[in-house]
Amino acid sequence: MSNIFNVHILGSSAAIPTSTRYTTTQVVNYRSKYILLDCCEGAQIQLRRMHLPLLKIDHIFISHLHGDHYLGLPGLIFTMHLLGRKKKLHVYAPHGMREIIELQYKISRLEPGFNIQYHLIHEARQLLYEDSFISIETIGMKHGLPSFGFLINEKPAPLNIRKESIEQYQIPVPQMQDIKSGKDLRLPGGKVVPNEEITLPPTPSRSYAFCSDTGYTEEYLEQIAEVNLLYHEATFLHDKVDVAAEKTHCTALQAAQIAQKASVKQLMLGHFSARYDELAPFLDEAKSAFENTILAVEGSMVEIGIESNVYKTSEEQTQ
Amino acid sequence: MSNIFNVHILGSSAAIPTSTRYTTTQVVNYRSKYILLDCCEGAQIQLRRMHLPLLKIDHIFISHLHGDHYLGLPGLIFTMHLLGRKKKLHVYAPHGMREIIELQYKISRLEPGFNIQYHLIHEARQLLYEDSFISIETIGMKHGLPSFGFLINEKPAPLNIRKESIEQYQIPVPQMQDIKSGKDLRLPGGKVVPNEEITLPPTPSRSYAFCSDTGYTEEYLEQIAEVNLLYHEATFLHDKVDVAAEKTHCTALQAAQIAQKASVKQLMLGHFSARYDELAPFLDEAKSAFENTILAVEGSMVEIGIESNVYKTSEEQTQ
Repeated sequence: MSNIFNVHILGSSAAIPTSTRYTTTQVVNYRSKYILLDCCEGAQIQLRRMHLPLLKIDHIFISHLHGDHYLGLPGLIFTMHLLGRKKKLHVYAPHGMREIIELQYKISRLEPGFNIQYHLIHEARQLLYEDSFISIETIGMKHGLPSFGFLINEKPAPLNIRKESIEQYQIPVPQMQDIKSGKDLRLPGGKVVPNEEITLPPTPSRSYAFCSDTGYTEEYLEQIAEVNLLYHEATFLHDKVDVAAEKTHCTALQAAQIAQKASVKQLMLGHFSARYDELAPFLDEAKSAFENTILAVEGSMVEIGIESNVYKTSEEQTQ
Repeated sequence: MSNIFNVHILGSSAAIPTSTRYTTTQVVNYRSKYILLDCCEGAQIQLRRMHLPLLKIDHIFISHLHGDHYLGLPGLIFTMHLLGRKKKLHVYAPHGMREIIELQYKISRLEPGFNIQYHLIHEARQLLYEDSFISIETIGMKHGLPSFGFLINEKPAPLNIRKESIEQYQIPVPQMQDIKSGKDLRLPGGKVVPNEEITLPPTPSRSYAFCSDTGYTEEYLEQIAEVNLLYHEATFLHDKVDVAAEKTHCTALQAAQIAQKASVKQLMLGHFSARYDELAPFLDEAKSAFENTILAVEGSMVEIGIESNVYKTSEEQTQ
């Protein structure tokens, strides 16, 4: 559990919510750090329904300022305030988000009891967040107004020391960090044991790319190459490719082509137009170009780095 | 059906939505004219779930600018635009609503394809709307910022002409309107038949008062006297009467006292604090002071003027 890296789907509809689908919102849980990607109208309700810890969200990333991607943010912030939040909240968004939120505080005469730090997103490949374990950077989308995807990269893990080597050489704890970072072992008598003899390769780093909203472009192929999981918008089926192009959105087939060209491990489709009740055709269409595809299903959780073609509901996960 | 006057409950939670309750929102259906009272985050989703015709809403009344009463309005307007609305929309709200909406259009670079007429609510007993059948005026609430209830009054109906009189005197159609408005019948020979001999009293006018949010006050008792249905906020149970007073809200008992003092026909409680999972105690408490009380139950519909102590789900209604 300590190594957890998964994504919870709160909404998967494009532009207009339906009676069964909220609009784009996801929660990434990285080692119990909860990160919100976009914040649809009703996101706070979905957080409660999915038993996700609303007050543990400290970082919110807004891809762009179309209503279906940010309208839940004022309400979520109001609720955090009413629930007594004191911790700083970080909001990463293109220009305008702060103005929208602050106007509403002013008019509602509510001053949140915690500090909000706004981080302005203004370009592709902008490093937004970094800690010991992960980094988060923007991906440039092709859309009607400034729009950004997010790439979450796990940093390289340290080398693993072979269990039998620890016993054989009685390696002292203080030296372990050095060995994990690649140094050789110096024994008390002066003998040197080469690092590669006593270590195993690190656990592979994992990565998640969130690409919404965008028309078809190959500009970010290199940036998302070989990610473990690519979430990509697929607003339409391919018979509507012209409508998709006009509205700077993608089809399921185009999303799959991106996944195939970027050699990602697994593709998840979302941002489905409200005109579609049935989503199975999206899966069929995408699989014709990229087999390891799943749908973003509301209420589900997908583990990153597991690459199995299944997802679990949040309920299943907590059981 | 043509005489329909009912209210659909889309949300009944105060301040914070819960996993089972949206915040305050109601749709009044008067003879297939759909009127929205407040517009919570997720209102557009509730409209769809309850099979209420989103595009037939032409008049939206916002009681005050606390988030739980208006946060769904930007999204509802965006959706009306995306669904191709062309008809003018009327929004009645205190100062600030227009600024909040228009800032978001500007930043999202979306211009709705229909005209929005904003009507500024600024005082109690302000006549906001009037047509041949109903009038809607404000009720002054006692709250932290300018807050208004709404009183929907059906205009007096015309007199009913007795069926047997129509046959007996062979009353010509052109004269019927005159008789319905109180005039006597003049027969071809010059004889006059007094109006009261050939008419029955009109169908009683119906009325609905929506009172949210407010601390306890008797200022509007006279204005809401004898309404058929009073919706009144009841944020807390009476053991929290001090908290209620501090936050300018009411308890279930206070709402019932208002109902009793105003001699209303039926009381409906709502705006329940998210701290309460169980709502039965609200009903019990209110009934101790005013027997004909019901709860605002999400998804339910209450007929106005029917004064029976039951409500139906929207599903039951459409069957």
